[in-house]
Amino acid sequence: MERNPRYDVLFEPVQIGPKVAPNRFYQVPHASGMTNANPRVRAAFRGMKAEGGWGVVSTGACSVHPSSDDSPFPFATLWDDADIRAHVAMTDAVHEHGALAAVELWHGGAAAVNRTSRDAPLSPSGVPWMATHVGFMSSARPKVMDQGDIRDLIRWHAEAAKRAESAGFDILYVYAGMGYLPYQFLLSSCNKRTDAYGGNARNRVRLVEELIDAVREATQGRCAVALRISLQELRSMPSDNAESEGHEIIGLLKDAPDLFDVKMDYSTTDCSPSRFSPEGSHEPIVDFVKTVTDKPVVGVGRFTSPDTMVGMVKRGVLDLIGGARPSIADPFLPKKIAEGREDEIRECIGCNICISSWHDGVWVRCTQNPTAGEEWRRGWHPENVKQDAAGSALVIGGGPSGLEAALTLARRGFTVSVAERARDFGGRLLWESGLPGLRQWSRVVDYRLGQLRRMPNVSLYAESDLSASEAVEFGADHIVVATGAKWTKILCGANEIPGGMLDGPTVYTPDDLAAGSQIEGPVAVFDFDNYYMGSAVALALAAQNLDTTYITTAGAPAAWGIMTNEQPQVSQAFREAGVRYRTLEIVQAFDGRTLSLQQIFSGEHRDIAVRSVVIVGQRAGNTDLYDALKAEAPQQSVVLTGDANAPGAIAHAVYQGHKTARDLGRAAESIDVRRDFPLVPDMSRLEAAE
Amino acid sequence: MERNPRYDVLFEPVQIGPKVAPNRFYQVPHASGMTNANPRVRAAFRGMKAEGGWGVVSTGACSVHPSSDDSPFPFATLWDDADIRAHVAMTDAVHEHGALAAVELWHGGAAAVNRTSRDAPLSPSGVPWMATHVGFMSSARPKVMDQGDIRDLIRWHAEAAKRAESAGFDILYVYAGMGYLPYQFLLSSCNKRTDAYGGNARNRVRLVEELIDAVREATQGRCAVALRISLQELRSMPSDNAESEGHEIIGLLKDAPDLFDVKMDYSTTDCSPSRFSPEGSHEPIVDFVKTVTDKPVVGVGRFTSPDTMVGMVKRGVLDLIGGARPSIADPFLPKKIAEGREDEIRECIGCNICISSWHDGVWVRCTQNPTAGEEWRRGWHPENVKQDAAGSALVIGGGPSGLEAALTLARRGFTVSVAERARDFGGRLLWESGLPGLRQWSRVVDYRLGQLRRMPNVSLYAESDLSASEAVEFGADHIVVATGAKWTKILCGANEIPGGMLDGPTVYTPDDLAAGSQIEGPVAVFDFDNYYMGSAVALALAAQNLDTTYITTAGAPAAWGIMTNEQPQVSQAFREAGVRYRTLEIVQAFDGRTLSLQQIFSGEHRDIAVRSVVIVGQRAGNTDLYDALKAEAPQQSVVLTGDANAPGAIAHAVYQGHKTARDLGRAAESIDVRRDFPLVPDMSRLEAAE
Repeated sequence: MERNPRYDVLFEPVQIGPKVAPNRFYQVPHASGMTNANPRVRAAFRGMKAEGGWGVVSTGACSVHPSSDDSPFPFATLWDDADIRAHVAMTDAVHEHGALAAVELWHGGAAAVNRTSRDAPLSPSGVPWMATHVGFMSSARPKVMDQGDIRDLIRWHAEAAKRAESAGFDILYVYAGMGYLPYQFLLSSCNKRTDAYGGNARNRVRLVEELIDAVREATQGRCAVALRISLQELRSMPSDNAESEGHEIIGLLKDAPDLFDVKMDYSTTDCSPSRFSPEGSHEPIVDFVKTVTDKPVVGVGRFTSPDTMVGMVKRGVLDLIGGARPSIADPFLPKKIAEGREDEIRECIGCNICISSWHDGVWVRCTQNPTAGEEWRRGWHPENVKQDAAGSALVIGGGPSGLEAALTLARRGFTVSVAERARDFGGRLLWESGLPGLRQWSRVVDYRLGQLRRMPNVSLYAESDLSASEAVEFGADHIVVATGAKWTKILCGANEIPGGMLDGPTVYTPDDLAAGSQIEGPVAVFDFDNYYMGSAVALALAAQNLDTTYITTAGAPAAWGIMTNEQPQVSQAFREAGVRYRTLEIVQAFDGRTLSLQQIFSGEHRDIAVRSVVIVGQRAGNTDLYDALKAEAPQQSVVLTGDANAPGAIAHAVYQGHKTARDLGRAAESIDVRRDFPLVPDMSRLEAAE
Repeated sequence: MERNPRYDVLFEPVQIGPKVAPNRFYQVPHASGMTNANPRVRAAFRGMKAEGGWGVVSTGACSVHPSSDDSPFPFATLWDDADIRAHVAMTDAVHEHGALAAVELWHGGAAAVNRTSRDAPLSPSGVPWMATHVGFMSSARPKVMDQGDIRDLIRWHAEAAKRAESAGFDILYVYAGMGYLPYQFLLSSCNKRTDAYGGNARNRVRLVEELIDAVREATQGRCAVALRISLQELRSMPSDNAESEGHEIIGLLKDAPDLFDVKMDYSTTDCSPSRFSPEGSHEPIVDFVKTVTDKPVVGVGRFTSPDTMVGMVKRGVLDLIGGARPSIADPFLPKKIAEGREDEIRECIGCNICISSWHDGVWVRCTQNPTAGEEWRRGWHPENVKQDAAGSALVIGGGPSGLEAALTLARRGFTVSVAERARDFGGRLLWESGLPGLRQWSRVVDYRLGQLRRMPNVSLYAESDLSASEAVEFGADHIVVATGAKWTKILCGANEIPGGMLDGPTVYTPDDLAAGSQIEGPVAVFDFDNYYMGSAVALALAAQNLDTTYITTAGAPAAWGIMTNEQPQVSQAFREAGVRYRTLEIVQAFDGRTLSLQQIFSGEHRDIAVRSVVIVGQRAGNTDLYDALKAEAPQQSVVLTGDANAPGAIAHAVYQGHKTARDLGRAAESIDVRRDFPLVPDMSRLEAAE
């Protein structure tokens, strides 16, 4: 197909200092969870985006020195020459497809507490950077940098820049954002210095200027230098010399870098979930930058609509369309627009499982793109599936896992039939995407159904509630059972291990709500799942004007939602909706009027008066059909997948469905999962020293 | 010196199946945070314990298969032959000193959620294993194992056992504890199977028996097989056939392994802080095992007293004295007893910074032993310091950092003087070790003072409050400033970043309490430090019969104390002492009567009535003396260390003091910090496949 000429502007080249980006699609630095310890995994993950048409592909945070050690959170390193080879693997993969490679040189300062290197964390004035997530806390506080520390920091950046150029990078970042060290110098609340690096804005930008100069000089102007800067706090601060401190500081720096990469200050606002923020949510903070500088500007906003992208360029907000989450969900987003296939974009749903992976300290995962991180390890390509199969497959269950399995099976060449019991396809997402804020999650279904409906080797059967014998009689070579999971009324103990059942006429689960049960208030939602469902249910009940109390075993509503950046906004939504919350408690008993609670640590008992209880706790796979198939047709090829096999987030269900489809009919020995290892230096010198 | 014959029993050899432990000192498996990615660091860390006299030295958890992937928490692997070499480094180091090497073969089941391998977690019946710490939570739930999964699990153990023998291990563990997979089979609350592996105790032990048999057969009886088992829940459960389920299950397994390694069920009870549990706290749970089996039994209990150890053996509780924390604090504990130097033992203080390191996902750290983890990387030996220095050093400040610096400087050969302003040495620990439960923390001071007082090249000056000019006039070649830190009255914003000051006649810090300020109740303690101090202060105030409310920015009292296993018992102590708590709030204002609070996420305002406030928030280094020295005597060698440089836990202060002393007077170029890299397999085959 041909490109829609309306989108031509997105494919114009952009000059960035001495380099030229081939188009406006710019994968900004984002965490992959893949460190120098996984160079081949990382290179394949980043290279795939270049293959998919992104004109610039960046690393995640790349530490310039052991005094910026964020372990156990994943980060790359350019600490010494031994680190260069690991990056060459990536720049080669990116250059192979004509894209530019960028490296986010990074010093975390007080936000990187050096848990492994054990250096005292650095900061302008000893102000720590903290976060509510206990995993981000530390018992160490930063030191105040002296003049020698500042000289060292500049030298480390220059040395890392030289290594970066050796590794093949085209664009070198200075990173002044998100609580990291150069940003702490910009912010008067963190920088209380009385020397030339503190005080007025002119002094506070000095370090950033010197870092930019040092990086540029280190590579004698051969590489482009980008400044990544957070603007949320700065723009909120008044200035005598400009509209805000943000304006003043961008003004002071307007000619310094070759590119501005502009963003928010906190993970929860920078990478806000679709549950609470629409596409383009950064614009009100970053829109002024192009009015102050002539340098090109890149920014993000979970852009998946090419019309929105064109608007950002034409309205003069951005020169380059930054992508992090959308580039993970669909590495081929640019190519699909280029080829007039924008309706085939696998749009990011904004669930933030990707950022949860970084908070979890592991490789990035994606709900929409199950191949993310598996490009090298399992050889999975997000678009191309080897057509290696014949025969037929019956997929039972048309939820996220079943649809993904069907799509990948069909791409492999199977003749695929999907049987769904309900009238509509979508499984749990049919109801869940109707919960407050979760509308965009339906893209998981929309993308897959849209693809499946075009495929000649796929038949979709709704309202098909098959028994085991009917399924066998269907006559497919393989049966894939993706029948989902149900919520149970199992409670949990003070140790948070499930056990015991709460039942009664007014005890419900989310499945009851999905089925239309009418709830009488006051209602309590007891959440020991601790992801989105408990808070979403509470908000849905409050929206029905029910007096709603949310109770959790954890220390905050939507406790695991700190991982997906949902937690702060859940509390705001609770306040707005009038949902009360109670933390660190378990439910012990309920007689229809009084709910008995216990503090999980101290054992203290407390009662509250409610008429109904919704338990959001343990899920159990729907395995009846699978069990019947195994019993009645032991010779039949049957595989259990998705939530029915192991209940999890939608990302897990999609991943399981994909894996099931990739592996179906293949001998276990032929399924190779490769282990990556670092590209290590010659250790003989070190060994000899022992 | 000669060994006290009272302790001879500790040095008897013990038969363990086909192997003989040279004495009763047994370093049980414990997390080091060092994985196969750091083979040299790990080998040196473990080997040091063999050098120090431990007769058996074990690994930490060593995964048998990618379906037991606990990332980002550190764990070792024996997944394939590529993993063998990393372990050989350790077994060689252990064998060099005549000790046995043990490997803790491990499958985490539902407690290891495979964040990187992405296999569906395994479990007997789909019951997840959860924990309050959000970092332990997951959005994935386990699958129910089928017969094929059970066969696989047994095969994986057998294959790992063969690799373990190839790697040189003498003792191979089967690990049925702490929520991990074989333990889940033992526990009826997790095992609801109706096949031969579920139901009565006889059935529930079947998997453990088969694992033990498989491991033994895999090495044809050449290696000893140990069973590590948690007994807290099992002993609490009644049994028709024995005194408890614990008794019944040990009875069923009594002849199966060559050794029982017995322990508690939860990290918070297994590795309980000294703040709440005394030495030997496991005994009431594990004391029955030797009455049921004739096999040798090892157990732990933070044993540092040789008399207690002898008692455990003579009273028939244990055959081998297990050590984890005490072996980190003093790898040379056995040797010191052997040589009649038991008064030189660097006793574990039970602060649990070691276990916090594992919860943090990084290498183990120790308050008492700053060389832990640095044996290879920095070449630090816990006992032997190279005598490479002459000249003199004046250490100003006799707290943890100053005393450690002085001791290490003296060992290097400096003539050392320590000037302490107060009447007694100990710095912050003088007051802190008087807070409820923290008595044993004074061991940090006791050990160092005890050593320093014997050294001919050390002079200790109490009540010596030196000015900068007096310090220079003292005439030392080097001045080490270890003047500690003070607590400030700085508050923090909803983003938990410090800013703004609260002052008033009844606003206090811990320093005011240490100085003897009398507090009027009701009193609020506002904690955004979130380690031990806030809760300890609250408990100290409640002990004065003051009406006490504890307020924290975090989701639970002593939020970071989940890392050190303190959190649950803090809540229990609060309940017993009548301390109320409030979470997820910051302090905004205080007029002497009303304390204004704000919910950190929703912004909701709340007021409480109190007369006094204690702020446990940001600390600031005491740098006045250092600053004056730099200004007045720029030629003088002066270095800032400990809390004065970068405030932190006592572990950080001791580490900084040690590092300062090791590096003093040495050129930066001569200070080598080695980077460890994995021992990688030949990747050419994999590369070729790309």
